[in-house]
Amino acid sequence: MSRRNIKLTLQYDGTNYCGWQIQANGPTIQGLLSNFLARIEGRAVTVYGAGRTDSGVHALAQVANYYTERSLSCDKLKRAINGSLPPDIRVTAVEEVDETFHARFSARQKRYRYQIALGEVMSPFEYRYYYHHPHKLELAAMQLAAQMIVGTHDFAAFATASEIESTTRTLSAVEIEQDGERLICQVRGDGFLRYMVRTIVGTLIEIGRGKLSPEQMNHILLGRLRANAGPTAPACGLTLLGVDY
Amino acid sequence: MSRRNIKLTLQYDGTNYCGWQIQANGPTIQGLLSNFLARIEGRAVTVYGAGRTDSGVHALAQVANYYTERSLSCDKLKRAINGSLPPDIRVTAVEEVDETFHARFSARQKRYRYQIALGEVMSPFEYRYYYHHPHKLELAAMQLAAQMIVGTHDFAAFATASEIESTTRTLSAVEIEQDGERLICQVRGDGFLRYMVRTIVGTLIEIGRGKLSPEQMNHILLGRLRANAGPTAPACGLTLLGVDY
Repeated sequence: MSRRNIKLTLQYDGTNYCGWQIQANGPTIQGLLSNFLARIEGRAVTVYGAGRTDSGVHALAQVANYYTERSLSCDKLKRAINGSLPPDIRVTAVEEVDETFHARFSARQKRYRYQIALGEVMSPFEYRYYYHHPHKLELAAMQLAAQMIVGTHDFAAFATASEIESTTRTLSAVEIEQDGERLICQVRGDGFLRYMVRTIVGTLIEIGRGKLSPEQMNHILLGRLRANAGPTAPACGLTLLGVDY
Repeated sequence: MSRRNIKLTLQYDGTNYCGWQIQANGPTIQGLLSNFLARIEGRAVTVYGAGRTDSGVHALAQVANYYTERSLSCDKLKRAINGSLPPDIRVTAVEEVDETFHARFSARQKRYRYQIALGEVMSPFEYRYYYHHPHKLELAAMQLAAQMIVGTHDFAAFATASEIESTTRTLSAVEIEQDGERLICQVRGDGFLRYMVRTIVGTLIEIGRGKLSPEQMNHILLGRLRANAGPTAPACGLTLLGVDY
């Protein structure tokens, strides 16, 4: 039987995981998935993920792929994975795709959402998915600053110091909306540096609180120095919404 | 300073607790709350709860009260409790009430919600709050049966065998609605026996699956035998929505 390329779409609550990528420190989504698939395949399996979400970051539609020579149907595979993985990780779709599809390298765009709860009391049902920040934020100032980073830029100021490859990325949208006591930031782009969304959000919060003016967003971007940007916002507020191919 | 009667409104995700009531087996909401209030008061504190939610059951608005001789403002007390309790328990309101108010004995009506998820894949963000039951349920049959238990009845068939007091209660509404792949059952009544809502739901599910006819709901009620009713539905689907005084 010829080699089949399997695309998986995954949802997970990242609270209890050390992120997507396999590591020694603790459980990861890629680790659990690879271990289970290795048991089915009877050999080591490499699972390629679209985005390496960090520790505590969630996903509504992470995408991954791996190669198999087994003939197990997509439906059976989906049920087998969901029957084996803990309930905070679910496979929502399994499809057989073209040999050339690669979850990471074929990705055209990724969409992230960052959620901030402004109310005094954080809901016990939602605290895992919101950064609780019970302070007034100037939405208009944040929206103005957000527009300054849309487009193709060197995002070194919003990356960790350890980046070796190019720090140039293209953001097609950075949108912030308020819904009562919730502030939702959605970011779309062709790719993201490590901690990039969370550092953008951390900087936007500084602007929303009036600690930085909206215009400084542009200076921070052009200065390309991480030290000028705001703090990295907490992981719990971040969710990988989806990956477009 | 004279004795003040303090009313607390609480939300909690019951997943990690052995229910409301203090017990030796593990952490309870009442236990954590009593311990913290005892530290503030410098003496043992009895916290009276409106409903003794069972292990794994949630609350959107549980009500409790206790007596204090301290002069701490309600606002400060609220912040102190929320600063001390884990994030899956929150106090949403603290009020000083009349000396005669008792969270349990003054309650006129309680409202519960039971959530069932019918879809094939259970969301990793919601599995704590739904009973995952990926089977077709006949909504109309369940709604018909639900109407048979509205009113004042002896609910012995839906209680645990250990009930000593009267098993007569009055339900003012039992409503079931479907929202896509979710089935939501709301029950209102003057009081509830232990496991009563979950046994009613478990029986309605048997009817929804066609294992029992809707008419049998009436026979089960009149027969007053627990063995005739359906299984007790899992705790995770149940939420105490509120208490009316």
